[in-house]
Amino acid sequence: MVNVKKTVNELDPYVPGRSNADLARAYGLDPIKIIRMGSNENPMGPSPKAIKALEENLHRIHTYPESNIDDLKGKIAEYAGVDSENIIIGGDGADEILDVLAKTLMEPGDEYIIHPPSYMYYEFTFNIHGAVPVYARWDIGKNQLDVDSVLEAITPQTKVIFLCTPNNPTGGLIDKKDIKTILESTDALVVVDEAYWEFSGVNNLELLADYDNLFILRTFSKVMGLAGMRIGYGIGDEKFIQYMHRVKPVFSLIRLSYIAAAATLDDPGYIAKSTQLSIQSRDYLYQKMSKFPELKVFPSRANYILVDVRGTGMNSKEISEELMKNGIIVRDCSSFRGLDDYYIRVSVATLEEDERFINVLRDILI
Amino acid sequence: MVNVKKTVNELDPYVPGRSNADLARAYGLDPIKIIRMGSNENPMGPSPKAIKALEENLHRIHTYPESNIDDLKGKIAEYAGVDSENIIIGGDGADEILDVLAKTLMEPGDEYIIHPPSYMYYEFTFNIHGAVPVYARWDIGKNQLDVDSVLEAITPQTKVIFLCTPNNPTGGLIDKKDIKTILESTDALVVVDEAYWEFSGVNNLELLADYDNLFILRTFSKVMGLAGMRIGYGIGDEKFIQYMHRVKPVFSLIRLSYIAAAATLDDPGYIAKSTQLSIQSRDYLYQKMSKFPELKVFPSRANYILVDVRGTGMNSKEISEELMKNGIIVRDCSSFRGLDDYYIRVSVATLEEDERFINVLRDILI
Repeated sequence: MVNVKKTVNELDPYVPGRSNADLARAYGLDPIKIIRMGSNENPMGPSPKAIKALEENLHRIHTYPESNIDDLKGKIAEYAGVDSENIIIGGDGADEILDVLAKTLMEPGDEYIIHPPSYMYYEFTFNIHGAVPVYARWDIGKNQLDVDSVLEAITPQTKVIFLCTPNNPTGGLIDKKDIKTILESTDALVVVDEAYWEFSGVNNLELLADYDNLFILRTFSKVMGLAGMRIGYGIGDEKFIQYMHRVKPVFSLIRLSYIAAAATLDDPGYIAKSTQLSIQSRDYLYQKMSKFPELKVFPSRANYILVDVRGTGMNSKEISEELMKNGIIVRDCSSFRGLDDYYIRVSVATLEEDERFINVLRDILI
Repeated sequence: MVNVKKTVNELDPYVPGRSNADLARAYGLDPIKIIRMGSNENPMGPSPKAIKALEENLHRIHTYPESNIDDLKGKIAEYAGVDSENIIIGGDGADEILDVLAKTLMEPGDEYIIHPPSYMYYEFTFNIHGAVPVYARWDIGKNQLDVDSVLEAITPQTKVIFLCTPNNPTGGLIDKKDIKTILESTDALVVVDEAYWEFSGVNNLELLADYDNLFILRTFSKVMGLAGMRIGYGIGDEKFIQYMHRVKPVFSLIRLSYIAAAATLDDPGYIAKSTQLSIQSRDYLYQKMSKFPELKVFPSRANYILVDVRGTGMNSKEISEELMKNGIIVRDCSSFRGLDDYYIRVSVATLEEDERFINVLRDILI
């Protein structure tokens, strides 16, 4: 076999997830009846306007996507209240934006700071490029960022600092003043991941005017209901965005994704209702789960809730399997750096599904 | 602004292509009537089975794609006559496979060999990683690979050698014995790009058994009629494929693309007919264009034809614009390394479109 890069040799081997069909088979379930509370998706389904736009464009799938996507860029700029020139759109969700950031900034040995427990894909993407993770800390007890741990982690080699707010999987927000403190303490790019901002009502766009080292990361996979179409975007300094475009894949955003994203932005009623129903579901789940003395339920500003299950006598794998046997997928968080084997993450669902989940939980625990 | 990588600073700035809508506006054309002979797509359109499968799955676009795509892998393996373990599927066409190859193999300063004129995306992808291109040579006069130029370009730093057959944009094939000679002359990975193999009837799968440094690159964008869905695949040594999976993005293949690819493979009649009609169109275009003494037309084994237009008194930009004024897009090849300003590439179309193209050409030239 040919020689692979040293960094790749040191990465963990790839383990594919199990498909819904696989899970259904293993647990003797009807795949259609499986309740998905593991991936922070939009339980309402996609915007009907997106579906309609897709139907009208299926006949064109034999032609390449447009490389010019100014129209969608304009709509996103309007939604975010920034200029088109500050936007870059990713064709593999926000994950592609992460990859483009790594390609633009990271040379072997360069450092980036993350605050575990947080989104694991930062490490997956950046380590490929020989970049070195430096661990700050999310204070689980207070469910807030340990800002000092970030400031102490900064070195002359720091190229990127990731701040996830609301933080996945803990659900807590990062204070705007803490973000400012960090922006002012470094020349590194501060990537503020706002994938879930709509569920919190809080974003950090206003800081863009003052800090050209701020980069905001967003996605169409959550409130926009398009997780399957893989669209993400970044907002940042215009000159920096131009550099990112030099390395961004040209055709990665497929035309159907482009069309679905544009149609969804043209449906503000859908976005508002999605936000509202997700918050409703979150509040319901929080309130109901808090009644189980075996569970420690974390307050959340996102569309998921972190739960410490050690009081149940089961670990996260065991309780996830019990739920799966009843057709409910939640996220076993044992693979998150910074969490032990006793946390699960529960995503919002429809109120009907929420009730079913609570009933199953009751059957398992009581 | 934050500091970008030195290699990125040295890349060419990004210039977005003009959209169909833009072109139509600029030339006062009806966008629907534009004839696309510039991108080597399938003029038949997609398989009706693919469209139907997509229609049935639009309601699921709010959920993440499966990370387990063994089902499609199995179908591709069957189509290619290899084992599933030898397959890796890319979610941004073959371009993503190129990116994954670069991530798996290339460290700053490592070399790769290409034979201009050929597919330009090899350089786009690999240079981002600090890899260094070394230029072998495609003999335009004979429309064949200058094998010695490849052998002479090999150094201890060579990590990858690209061989494109049929070669884009010249249309010539590389002899199997030449590929063997190269495979035997190096420990580097020899990437044989077979994006257009179906139109030639020739592939190099049989060499896989003997050479673990052979990697075959393919796409669903050409005969499979799914350019808009961005699906590509690679075939190679099982252990090497496992390493590639360590760095491959997990969700880049969207579910709709997965479904369209599987449905197309389930439609062998469509694939056969697409191949046949494309060859028919190629033969017609070759025969008709050869009658213009102003044109030097290159024999092709692919679904496009390279044409030297210097005899017309126009350069490639000028003749492309004349064609565009008449609603026909061809590829101006002046941006291909190794070609001067007098080549265009004409993709196959429907026979009706071919006739229209020949008539327009007649109006322009005679």
